[in-house]
Amino acid sequence: MTLSMSALTLPAVERALTNLSAILDKGLTHAKATGIDPDTLVQARLAPDMLTLAGQVQRASDSAKGLVARLAGVDNPSMADDETSFAQLQDRIARTLAFVRGVDRKLLDGSETRTVTLPVRGQTITLGGQAYLMGFALPNIHFHVTTAYAILRHNGAPLGKLDYLGPLA
Amino acid sequence: MTLSMSALTLPAVERALTNLSAILDKGLTHAKATGIDPDTLVQARLAPDMLTLAGQVQRASDSAKGLVARLAGVDNPSMADDETSFAQLQDRIARTLAFVRGVDRKLLDGSETRTVTLPVRGQTITLGGQAYLMGFALPNIHFHVTTAYAILRHNGAPLGKLDYLGPLA
Repeated sequence: MTLSMSALTLPAVERALTNLSAILDKGLTHAKATGIDPDTLVQARLAPDMLTLAGQVQRASDSAKGLVARLAGVDNPSMADDETSFAQLQDRIARTLAFVRGVDRKLLDGSETRTVTLPVRGQTITLGGQAYLMGFALPNIHFHVTTAYAILRHNGAPLGKLDYLGPLA
Repeated sequence: MTLSMSALTLPAVERALTNLSAILDKGLTHAKATGIDPDTLVQARLAPDMLTLAGQVQRASDSAKGLVARLAGVDNPSMADDETSFAQLQDRIARTLAFVRGVDRKLLDGSETRTVTLPVRGQTITLGGQAYLMGFALPNIHFHVTTAYAILRHNGAPLGKLDYLGPLA
């Protein structure tokens, strides 16, 4: 198997989003089992100036669809950031996965040397495709999935590292 | 630039460890400025059954050196997990970085199709090199760096996402 940007990118993105969905399912089950209001848990955060659980899922989604759209050179579908329930967050993840799976994987190949521009904190950053994938987008996706996991763990959800990593071969 | 396992792996690992070191520095500065005992902060965690800050750094180190050692086919240096201070955690990161930087990068190239075996929760898992890098080791490193960040954020340290991502081109 030759290394290619599609093989490096698409399984990693799908895996992170699929694991995030499973983590949220366990979080909702935990809330129902312990009497935590699920809609309140969606607003939980680890520090007053950190994003809520909903915000972590929204940014994981943005990082995932932005990565695939920029590498493939296709439009990045806008999503409204209006989710307030576990069901809506699951729908957001499902729409993100549908977009990722619908992109022609051949469009990603060769993107390691393409220039990608993206907005970061009010500035425009320019990176090569490979540096964008490995040094920015994947760390960012993993950051938000991990922080969603940590918010739920901090609120008592019975999750383990293998929920984050997902099924291993 | 052709995609290669050395170019995919080494900069990403060095970046994650370097950013972790900078995050810990800011955490220590915050502890000193606000009167938190630094050695107590090293033992902080987000849930009773999660790892401490020290544990997160140890596992980030293990994931990083294990990844490079397994892909390169060289011995994985054992480290004792006896750190109890910020200075000792910084030394652990420095020793991990020294190992990573000392491995002949040519040994990693071609490892995308090599078989890697690793222990996971008492079982032995077998993965191809590419799946190990993208689906296991990098998510794991990012998990532990993010959780270290989250522990410090939860304890009030003035960190932002760019501390986690590190300098962008």
